[in-house]
Amino acid sequence: MREAIRRYVPILDWGRHYTRSAFGNDLMAAVIVTIMLIPQSLAYAMLAGLPPEAGIYASVVPIMIYAVLGTSRALAVGPVAVVSLMTAASVSEVAAQGTAGYAVAALTLALLSGTILLVMGIFRLGFLANFLSHPVIAGFITASGVLIAASQLKHVLGVSAGGGTLVDILTSLVAHLGQTNVVTLVIGAGATLFLFWVRRGLKPLLTSIGVPGGLAGLATKAGPVAAVVVTTLAVWGFGLADRGVATVGDVPQGLPPFTLPSFAPDLVASLAVPALLISVIGFVESISVAQTLAAKKRQRIHPDQELIGLGAANIGAAFTGGYPVTGGFARSVVNYDAGAETPAAGAFTAVGLAIAAVALTPLVHDLPNATLAATIIVAVLSLVDLSILKKTWAYSKADFLAVAATIVVTLGFGVEAGVSTGVVLSIALHLYKTSRPHIAEVGLVPGTQHFRNIRRHKVETDPSLLTLRVDESLYFVNARFLEDCVQDRIADDPAIRNVVLMCSAVNEIDYSALESLEALNHSLTDLGIGLHLSEVKGPVMDRLKTAHLLDALNGQVFLSQYHAWCALTDRTADRTAAAE
Amino acid sequence: MREAIRRYVPILDWGRHYTRSAFGNDLMAAVIVTIMLIPQSLAYAMLAGLPPEAGIYASVVPIMIYAVLGTSRALAVGPVAVVSLMTAASVSEVAAQGTAGYAVAALTLALLSGTILLVMGIFRLGFLANFLSHPVIAGFITASGVLIAASQLKHVLGVSAGGGTLVDILTSLVAHLGQTNVVTLVIGAGATLFLFWVRRGLKPLLTSIGVPGGLAGLATKAGPVAAVVVTTLAVWGFGLADRGVATVGDVPQGLPPFTLPSFAPDLVASLAVPALLISVIGFVESISVAQTLAAKKRQRIHPDQELIGLGAANIGAAFTGGYPVTGGFARSVVNYDAGAETPAAGAFTAVGLAIAAVALTPLVHDLPNATLAATIIVAVLSLVDLSILKKTWAYSKADFLAVAATIVVTLGFGVEAGVSTGVVLSIALHLYKTSRPHIAEVGLVPGTQHFRNIRRHKVETDPSLLTLRVDESLYFVNARFLEDCVQDRIADDPAIRNVVLMCSAVNEIDYSALESLEALNHSLTDLGIGLHLSEVKGPVMDRLKTAHLLDALNGQVFLSQYHAWCALTDRTADRTAAAE
Repeated sequence: MREAIRRYVPILDWGRHYTRSAFGNDLMAAVIVTIMLIPQSLAYAMLAGLPPEAGIYASVVPIMIYAVLGTSRALAVGPVAVVSLMTAASVSEVAAQGTAGYAVAALTLALLSGTILLVMGIFRLGFLANFLSHPVIAGFITASGVLIAASQLKHVLGVSAGGGTLVDILTSLVAHLGQTNVVTLVIGAGATLFLFWVRRGLKPLLTSIGVPGGLAGLATKAGPVAAVVVTTLAVWGFGLADRGVATVGDVPQGLPPFTLPSFAPDLVASLAVPALLISVIGFVESISVAQTLAAKKRQRIHPDQELIGLGAANIGAAFTGGYPVTGGFARSVVNYDAGAETPAAGAFTAVGLAIAAVALTPLVHDLPNATLAATIIVAVLSLVDLSILKKTWAYSKADFLAVAATIVVTLGFGVEAGVSTGVVLSIALHLYKTSRPHIAEVGLVPGTQHFRNIRRHKVETDPSLLTLRVDESLYFVNARFLEDCVQDRIADDPAIRNVVLMCSAVNEIDYSALESLEALNHSLTDLGIGLHLSEVKGPVMDRLKTAHLLDALNGQVFLSQYHAWCALTDRTADRTAAAE
Repeated sequence: MREAIRRYVPILDWGRHYTRSAFGNDLMAAVIVTIMLIPQSLAYAMLAGLPPEAGIYASVVPIMIYAVLGTSRALAVGPVAVVSLMTAASVSEVAAQGTAGYAVAALTLALLSGTILLVMGIFRLGFLANFLSHPVIAGFITASGVLIAASQLKHVLGVSAGGGTLVDILTSLVAHLGQTNVVTLVIGAGATLFLFWVRRGLKPLLTSIGVPGGLAGLATKAGPVAAVVVTTLAVWGFGLADRGVATVGDVPQGLPPFTLPSFAPDLVASLAVPALLISVIGFVESISVAQTLAAKKRQRIHPDQELIGLGAANIGAAFTGGYPVTGGFARSVVNYDAGAETPAAGAFTAVGLAIAAVALTPLVHDLPNATLAATIIVAVLSLVDLSILKKTWAYSKADFLAVAATIVVTLGFGVEAGVSTGVVLSIALHLYKTSRPHIAEVGLVPGTQHFRNIRRHKVETDPSLLTLRVDESLYFVNARFLEDCVQDRIADDPAIRNVVLMCSAVNEIDYSALESLEALNHSLTDLGIGLHLSEVKGPVMDRLKTAHLLDALNGQVFLSQYHAWCALTDRTADRTAAAE
């Protein structure tokens, strides 16, 4: 019982061994992460179409809950770019941005998404996330990065444009180009260029003048904070708000409020599918980061417990004015690099953000939206990586097709359509590949007991013996293919007296394949041709023993292909005949 | 060019070698099949909710078209029970039975279904039918048989009931029980019992009194004709139509008319999915029958050409007053048994039915619907085979689950829901199975060069060497599983210095799995642990050579597991070391 509780509440495990040194390291990491998170939270809330405080609120309670229930020592939970974009895309469908309904729908989305994660965790369905293949994720993240950057250009220009697909966004931007606010553009473009320079040029510069690597890295991370401070002071000092520069404005001072998501059936029904996609995408992002960081210290992440932790965090977000959250890449890496040792670092970050929510919100009144947009653009463009197209093209056309479709559909039809297309297409391509398995006709490599493809190697064959090596599990999708293959081969070649199926790579024979083999056995028996199996694996054999096939088989099951060859070609197995 | 034409028009092939003896045999078979088909066509039209002549029309032009384009020598194309039921289920959704709109919708369904088959044939998509696993087909046919039999009970009772699911049908029957027409019931129940007896008891009786087997078999097939003749004469002689016995009534005399399906976008949209399901189910039924019969004579069926033949036949049905058709089991077996040698037998059958349509329709005016219902009930109950549940339970729980779900959903929610559930569930179960592959930790069987599961066999191991045999292709669904498996194992056991993945059963490594292996290599490198591969297959190796992994791999790729063992445990490979 105590074991079970500790399993589901990991804090009871690491909390008992918490040391003063870990406390110091966690606290230091928390201070650094908090400073980074204040502008980031405001920016992502803007991306999600929510008031700025929602971003802060979404980082307080969820982090605390994750600290209690999560298994990653370094993961930092909160709003992230892709999930914010997905929130905006799905909530815009049911409510107008800026209305109370919009914020409530975001809460409902967080609740649904949290519930889905929690249920998946309880029923140990974490493996479902594997249905998102790496290429699909890479394509989706890249396309989302482009979409997000494009969606932020309106803030840089100071115009009110819209759109959910790349074409819509760009069309709308061009249509509104005439309304560009020049002061905003100067701030936005300046901040963007500054941040790109910080990311690319600052660290080499600092290290070249002798600043230690760690400090130089930290300075790079502080870039957004510097941009925020400078542009806020500029707006405040020169009264640029009167020149039409949009700013964050009034943000309520106070702790995250208690909020209630709506349970209206219509709303729940229309947010269910987006919530599922957000859950899965968020979980995949989170678990990838967590595993990468854990592997560095030979620690383990428990995916099903992670689902529970993230699920509870999202439910927490739903009741405290937030919106869907997950473990973010950037914030987690900063947390890890800054020396966080336990989830306590996350809890301290939450305290830091709570203090910011209470005390610091007046300071961001004059922070220009253009600066926030610049931080988002620079952050997401680092996610854009089109090299996945080149890599998959070189390695596997099926994977390339999945990536390319994911990117095109995401850009052209939005995030939900993109990720759904990627998943369905990659499953379909996999099934298609297994539906036409590689079936090699093999012969004996002279002087050995080994059998190789007759098309690749110089091998001995016997005209009366057809040996086929099946390079795939036999199941319903390819059952008929093998049957056809054998039937075609024997229809072409009347000399064949025996057929051997070499099963070294057959990992499963399902009921359809079993019936197919029975049918094959039946028709070969009618034609006076023997059907034999060789090198059948243990687990497959165990199952075949429960079926009728082995009794009805007109031939034999050979331990090795060499045994089959010797028996069926009247050669004597020499004394070195391979054991089973 | 001539080759291509002959490929797509098989009649040019067999037609050139057509002999007088084949003609005689085909003609004889056609006479027998024609006699059997007249009542069957009327009955299936009734099942489809169409006027009786539609069943005859659906058997004339489609058969002729198939004779030109089909590749099976014995397949008889026309209305079949399951497709008739599916037609009734889908057309009832868009039009009321008995209206002109109903008949037109059935034509449209045939056109759509024909077009889908034709397109699948042209693009060689015949393999798509393989997605219907044998257990799903068996479950679907069984459940459909029960549904069809239940739906015919109203004709036996002489009441007007309805319903598309088993519960609806039975509820409606019970509600109408009070209206039972006793004379109809006597005819219907009598015909049903008679036909059951013919099927079960007549053949043994005849053979026991010395009638030859072939003739006894033929007499059994003639049972429905006898029931039709006797009950028709009874209705006519005793004027039972005045006692409330429903009969076939007036059937127009004449050749199949030229008809036009509707192209209304709404209608097409709502029939598209049913048409797809009917195409696939019809194709699967047809190809199974055709392959079974062809295999007996070592002939070959070309599935993609079959799609073209069946597609064209359905399009023919759409323009000649028919409804969706396919190759039927019962009629094809009769055709084969009666000695049909070429598709010409089908063409002759079509002529016979055309003559019947012109000359014989007045004779069926007094044929009671109850008799037709009895022939359907007896025919379809022979399709009901619940033993598939027992067989799959014994062999594989996943297959059992797919059958059981198909049966339950078909009975409870109708044919379309049933077959869709079956397909989706069997794909999902397959993916689930491959998502958690069998990964065996193996060791050396003493005195051999063979490696076996350490849990099943007494083997040698080395504490510093972990060898895992992966019994599944590595692809996105299980990529992370392997990574986790290795990480868990090495986290538990600090003595491990080398990990070998034995890939003899790995038929594919997709891009996700490649990245997973790269990540594994990276984290094992950080931990100072070597990662090696052994027994990688040719096609997999070809692909790996295009990728970065082999360069980055911190260990080696061994030709055989024994080589890996010798190299990594500092033992010398003895001189009999297995060649690659």
